[in-house]
Amino acid sequence: MEGGQLYPVETLRAFTVQAFLRCGVAEPDAEVVADSLLEADLRGVDSHGVTRLLGTYVKRLRRGVVNPRPTVRLVDESAATLLFDGDNGLGAVVGKQAMEACIQRARAAGAAWAGVRHSNHFGACAYYTLMAAQSDHVGIAMTNSPPAMAPWGGVTPYLGTNPLSIALPAEAEPVVLDMATSVAARGHIILAAARGEATIPPGWALDARGRPTTDTREALAGLAMPLGGHKGYGLAMAIEALCGLLTGAAFGPGIGSLSREFQRPQDVGHLFGALDVGRMVPLEAFKARLGQMCRELRACTLAEGFERIYVPGEIEAEQRQRRLREGIPVPEPIREEFRALGSELGIAFE
Amino acid sequence: MEGGQLYPVETLRAFTVQAFLRCGVAEPDAEVVADSLLEADLRGVDSHGVTRLLGTYVKRLRRGVVNPRPTVRLVDESAATLLFDGDNGLGAVVGKQAMEACIQRARAAGAAWAGVRHSNHFGACAYYTLMAAQSDHVGIAMTNSPPAMAPWGGVTPYLGTNPLSIALPAEAEPVVLDMATSVAARGHIILAAARGEATIPPGWALDARGRPTTDTREALAGLAMPLGGHKGYGLAMAIEALCGLLTGAAFGPGIGSLSREFQRPQDVGHLFGALDVGRMVPLEAFKARLGQMCRELRACTLAEGFERIYVPGEIEAEQRQRRLREGIPVPEPIREEFRALGSELGIAFE
Repeated sequence: MEGGQLYPVETLRAFTVQAFLRCGVAEPDAEVVADSLLEADLRGVDSHGVTRLLGTYVKRLRRGVVNPRPTVRLVDESAATLLFDGDNGLGAVVGKQAMEACIQRARAAGAAWAGVRHSNHFGACAYYTLMAAQSDHVGIAMTNSPPAMAPWGGVTPYLGTNPLSIALPAEAEPVVLDMATSVAARGHIILAAARGEATIPPGWALDARGRPTTDTREALAGLAMPLGGHKGYGLAMAIEALCGLLTGAAFGPGIGSLSREFQRPQDVGHLFGALDVGRMVPLEAFKARLGQMCRELRACTLAEGFERIYVPGEIEAEQRQRRLREGIPVPEPIREEFRALGSELGIAFE
Repeated sequence: MEGGQLYPVETLRAFTVQAFLRCGVAEPDAEVVADSLLEADLRGVDSHGVTRLLGTYVKRLRRGVVNPRPTVRLVDESAATLLFDGDNGLGAVVGKQAMEACIQRARAAGAAWAGVRHSNHFGACAYYTLMAAQSDHVGIAMTNSPPAMAPWGGVTPYLGTNPLSIALPAEAEPVVLDMATSVAARGHIILAAARGEATIPPGWALDARGRPTTDTREALAGLAMPLGGHKGYGLAMAIEALCGLLTGAAFGPGIGSLSREFQRPQDVGHLFGALDVGRMVPLEAFKARLGQMCRELRACTLAEGFERIYVPGEIEAEQRQRRLREGIPVPEPIREEFRALGSELGIAFE
């Protein structure tokens, strides 16, 4: 996000929690969802923060298409697997609970997976994998999402831009990868449109007929480009199957759009994994060697035009420190959206 | 592989097993390694078959840098984790054993991971994930490998082209993704050089100074291009950590080259995962829905210039049927290599 009025995270958090409460969400759930979104804002992942998602989440709750008071249910379990039903609540509500249970189970069994069905958009995957890494587990999270990519060689939107996150416990900040399986996360295109940006970078998207486009509106009505062509397609398809089929959630066109359809539940599925590092190798040795790897990667000879080498998650961790200190930028169009939302719900937003 | 004399798989298998036996490998191990390589040849993955690897494996065994008689050891275990030491044997020996144990453990616990350290090149990841899928488990396999990619923004080779495979049990052939985290597997570049091809496609590689190149020799001395730039770097780095650090194997430049250094063990690490589908959802429902997803993907509207949409692993499964019927093509330079190898070892190769 390039610019905008800076808000302390606590101001945005209070507004977000209030907004969810006015939609009938229970207070602990409102806090979890606000936290998951604001972590993305803090980390500079604006495509997954309140600045993009609050209005959409509220609209879905008010239209009755998301259940504000879900009863999250453990459907099935074994020593190393768990299956949850999100009861069509906000994704982060069941998401956080599922990852917590997964970590607990991994602590007992060495490793575990937790599947989730009947869920909704759950924010950024890194929110969950960081929970695992901060508990000294390898964290894995993935989700399916509304059709935005065609299979390689096709032009019918079928697969989501299904993201994958892997986080590793480290001496200081965890190393965390969080990536869509498209060249760019769909949220970036939606955010560009919301900001009134007419163009997006080349390579991000195809128009509805499968031709490369840099026009934001054409991209929005078209297809996201899978990462590396057939490989991104394969990865997105595997994630679609793991999140949709392995959990009993919907898949492909069975998944409702987050921001274009307000008539049906999304029914997305998530899959969370945790692996207790200490069960494989001594934890301190793992962290020390990871520290060495990170230092060696950063010390590699620079390519032309680069000033620094980052390890996965480092840019976001630095952004988080900066935004905790300086505040989160909210661009003018989104401030206006928040004011309108506030007056609709009876909460002040300045 | 474009052309070459066709050989029945059994002919190549017998030659391969004999070659390993002459290097002091025990018969059951020779058969496992031959099988793992020939599965890649059958599936058309020539970069990971005998046509590329037999000569290299034999050379490493004869130089004493790979242990022909490893004692594979279970080092540590918990309900859902296993850690093996490959004792510097051929990678497929410990690899197959580790995946078998992982599947068995997943059958008991619902899911499991098996790490391997002190191993060597283990062929194609799909060999292991297919074992899991054929036992009605989701299969995951990954490995680190000798430095061939720089971190994003750098030009020092540090990370391997660390591949990832995910396989899913299906009604007929499993769906199986198997991809390097580089644009092209390093094996393709090595194979192009071995075949005397002067150029490789654009986008595959960078020269030693980090500039894009299509020159096969420059690419060989240079860097593989990470899939999608920073995302492929992130994925390769995560796999490096999971396979190297989580198992106690080497990582980064600590890993010996397969085909350029014959003085030190590779000490690569692998990580295998299995998840018992039936513990999450009824197996038949999973397979039926996966079948539906595959049919729907294949039926998507075609993009310009495409004649067919494939699901991951479908091209390879069809190639396997064809090569089982017609034979495996061995190009002339590799036939000559096999004849030389045969006369060195006292085995006929025509």
